[in-house]
Amino acid sequence: MTIAERTAESTWQGGLARGHGTVEPQSKAFGVLPVTWAARTEAPNGKTSPEELAAAAHSSCFAMALSLCLGERKAEPQRLTVSSTVTLDEVDGKPTVVSSALTVRGQVPGLDAAGFRAAVDDAAALCPISRLFAGAQITVDATLESA
Amino acid sequence: MTIAERTAESTWQGGLARGHGTVEPQSKAFGVLPVTWAARTEAPNGKTSPEELAAAAHSSCFAMALSLCLGERKAEPQRLTVSSTVTLDEVDGKPTVVSSALTVRGQVPGLDAAGFRAAVDDAAALCPISRLFAGAQITVDATLESA
Repeated sequence: MTIAERTAESTWQGGLARGHGTVEPQSKAFGVLPVTWAARTEAPNGKTSPEELAAAAHSSCFAMALSLCLGERKAEPQRLTVSSTVTLDEVDGKPTVVSSALTVRGQVPGLDAAGFRAAVDDAAALCPISRLFAGAQITVDATLESA
Repeated sequence: MTIAERTAESTWQGGLARGHGTVEPQSKAFGVLPVTWAARTEAPNGKTSPEELAAAAHSSCFAMALSLCLGERKAEPQRLTVSSTVTLDEVDGKPTVVSSALTVRGQVPGLDAAGFRAAVDDAAALCPISRLFAGAQITVDATLESA
């Protein structure tokens, strides 16, 4: 059963090192953005990259998954903050996404640290983007803060 | 050897169905964007989602990988267009990203269809985001257009 289909389009002109491209989401949530190899691998200088977009996908998906897993414990988050840092390393001579490191902070009234930890573990197993990223190591550093 | 590290941060407040969140890239290439479960799974209504961000990551990465593989054949693309459609399906009761379908169009002066096809196959094997998405089926529909 299809739950959602989402599309984005990219373009590229020229060689990798000196060419340039664009990326654009079909939703128009953001406009046509420039991408370059230099911005991807050196200083971003205000440009996004495949790794940053992957980090955005992962962090937003994990936040939703954790909200669901907290709900299964009758807990509603006042606020969750999830960051993802995606790392591109050279492995066997190829640029390879080796990891997505998640840092999770939660303010969840009425839940203790053990309950939060259990919900985080459930979210790590459920999160569709975590399972999509089967080619990389996923780590989760989670902390329950006072609400 | 680390080539790049890129970070994005998301937030969420409330339960999954009626709560709401945000996603923001560290580069500031786009601003703080709203996300909801309804926009993710029903009509997007101008909102992005984890699947759309994954499609953006995949299409932009594949375009760069193909540019590199064309360069290895001494061919420089006048223009590449790569779209990705990412599908979220229910599998064994869990929402699961089952596929990213790539559609590739290339205008590459001096290259024939067989050479383009070989470069596309090399790019499919090289593309870091294709390898990251080991949890999904990746398909590539590629066409060389007249330059």
